[in-house]
Amino acid sequence: MPSLTEKDTPFLALDRARMDRNLARMRSHVEGLGVALRPHLKTVKSVPAARRILGEMTSPATVSTLQEAEAFAAAGCTDLVYAVGIAPAKLPRVAALRATGVDLVVILDSVAQARAVVDASKAAGAPIPALIEIDCDDARAGLAPGDPALVEIGRILHAGSELRGVLTHGGASYRAFTPGAMMAMAAQERASAVRCAEALCAAGLPCPVVSIGSTPSAHFAQDFTGVTEVRAGVYTLSDLMMAGLGVGGIDDIALSVVTTVIGHQPRRGWILTDSGFMALSKDHGTAGMPVDQGYGLVANIDGQPFGDLVVRGVSQEHGVLALREGSTATLPDLPVGTLLRIYPNHACATVAMHASFAVTDGGREIVEDWPIMRGW
Amino acid sequence: MPSLTEKDTPFLALDRARMDRNLARMRSHVEGLGVALRPHLKTVKSVPAARRILGEMTSPATVSTLQEAEAFAAAGCTDLVYAVGIAPAKLPRVAALRATGVDLVVILDSVAQARAVVDASKAAGAPIPALIEIDCDDARAGLAPGDPALVEIGRILHAGSELRGVLTHGGASYRAFTPGAMMAMAAQERASAVRCAEALCAAGLPCPVVSIGSTPSAHFAQDFTGVTEVRAGVYTLSDLMMAGLGVGGIDDIALSVVTTVIGHQPRRGWILTDSGFMALSKDHGTAGMPVDQGYGLVANIDGQPFGDLVVRGVSQEHGVLALREGSTATLPDLPVGTLLRIYPNHACATVAMHASFAVTDGGREIVEDWPIMRGW
Repeated sequence: MPSLTEKDTPFLALDRARMDRNLARMRSHVEGLGVALRPHLKTVKSVPAARRILGEMTSPATVSTLQEAEAFAAAGCTDLVYAVGIAPAKLPRVAALRATGVDLVVILDSVAQARAVVDASKAAGAPIPALIEIDCDDARAGLAPGDPALVEIGRILHAGSELRGVLTHGGASYRAFTPGAMMAMAAQERASAVRCAEALCAAGLPCPVVSIGSTPSAHFAQDFTGVTEVRAGVYTLSDLMMAGLGVGGIDDIALSVVTTVIGHQPRRGWILTDSGFMALSKDHGTAGMPVDQGYGLVANIDGQPFGDLVVRGVSQEHGVLALREGSTATLPDLPVGTLLRIYPNHACATVAMHASFAVTDGGREIVEDWPIMRGW
Repeated sequence: MPSLTEKDTPFLALDRARMDRNLARMRSHVEGLGVALRPHLKTVKSVPAARRILGEMTSPATVSTLQEAEAFAAAGCTDLVYAVGIAPAKLPRVAALRATGVDLVVILDSVAQARAVVDASKAAGAPIPALIEIDCDDARAGLAPGDPALVEIGRILHAGSELRGVLTHGGASYRAFTPGAMMAMAAQERASAVRCAEALCAAGLPCPVVSIGSTPSAHFAQDFTGVTEVRAGVYTLSDLMMAGLGVGGIDDIALSVVTTVIGHQPRRGWILTDSGFMALSKDHGTAGMPVDQGYGLVANIDGQPFGDLVVRGVSQEHGVLALREGSTATLPDLPVGTLLRIYPNHACATVAMHASFAVTDGGREIVEDWPIMRGW
């Protein structure tokens, strides 16, 4: 295989040594606190990456689409949560995958969805298990803790299909910028889920699974009492948002886009590259954070950042590099043809723009090529 | 084939009737002003779409990657401009495609690139033609009009490969919000290119091609004197940015993402769907425009917008619909399972998230499936 310096840019590089370190750190933290880890595979969307993340493919995993569920099941996964509120029309596809022996669990937060799950379970002649989604932080989907619909939905599922438990996602942890705020978010995520589990139990309903998680809250959590499993995805590759939240440093980011300098606009202090939003994504997730990294932090081909050099703008196939606003550094001399690496804001968004990972063990040699799926 | 209501969401729908109308309007405008149209295929990234856009595949076209060049050439294209500043390491691939009989032209704006083109031409034993890129509006790449490097680069190319002419892209037209401002941008784009062409001619150098264009400037231009061809891409599908700039209306947008309602947060006035940034992209290109459309404008399954209902937030596989800030409208009643269509901000960004177009003739029946390429 070519080395990082021999392949046409732009392309996506994955440093397997950094990924392995991230995997070990999260697994040891979560399992050390006595709960199971259910990695979210939406970040990597890749079977060879999933093998590394899961170890045994039959161990618990999370997916964000039915295509992921089907592809990872075909590669040996048997224990999957599809962690996006179920659309009723997708239930036959869920039932079909379950019929092959995969324990695929759906999530929902309404009576309408619970009834659809019951109907689909009857049609399939086998129960489709569901987790009730809880909204622990006003960030996205789920029932507010204390909503009486929880028990109503639980009763419908328990009577007509299978009530597997509750699930929540502390998405607001992405906006908690101190370790204290993050630990408070993690505690709130846990407490919301446990409170709902207790409400189900108090109503005489089963709640074998209490599933929580996001990478930041999982990383900072100190107590998982009452929780049975933790979900997290982006910790696998990490990114500038995670570094900005204190979940590891820049040198824990396993993902980068390799790019070539294609021009300069010295009057404006710009260096142009061949990595626009098609290679990086349009994710500007560090925009509201203490350090705005633009559309990515620029490093040399060996991964050492230049400091204040960031991607200030992107069009489809052009990136505009410039010093961070207010920087007093000198623009580095990077002639046309120079190879660079860009650390992305958001690993999930950047991975999705590419068809494969060029995998290294930290050096320049590409040791494997891991395909990335797309579609639904 | 299934109809729009029978396919698992999210997916990308393309209304061929609207596209045909957009194609005819731009072609008639540009050719009516006496110049050739060189459509940019980066918007559609699809061979069947390109056939419809170009009519004859041998007619002029523009691409943004070498993968597009190779794929469209394999489908019959022979007259291509690769309109991103050339990275020297890509020149052997350019030469290889040229050797198959395709007139693939590169662009550049530096002496270093010109020397690389000369070297690669020598190595290939055949000249690689190049256009010199001009920066007409301080928006991206290219030489400022009046930069003496123009003639220096022209001489290097003329002596050692082939100077094909000049090219500019009026990217700043995306920030011109009145017809008057747009016409001024179009005039500036034309004048900058023509001035540079004249400078080359005054130095005794050839300049057979004077290539300009962006969808907004092409749409509003009234005079192409001195120009030989106009490039534009997004006019083919149109999007909310184009509608916001007055390049057609919402009912000219041929592209939409079909999505399903998966939940509600009535306390916050939210409707949740299964289309997050994976289906829509993270492009918020209407953010700085007079009407901010969020991450997309929401319509019913037949394409009629609800008015003030937009996509206010996206995570990977969730979209959050809500009324526009300040709206006095009532949130429509859209139960779980309701199918909707989302018009995107930026067609190029949204297309790139999908593997194919579900093509209709304006109704619900899917008549064709057009694959979309990805990669470089």
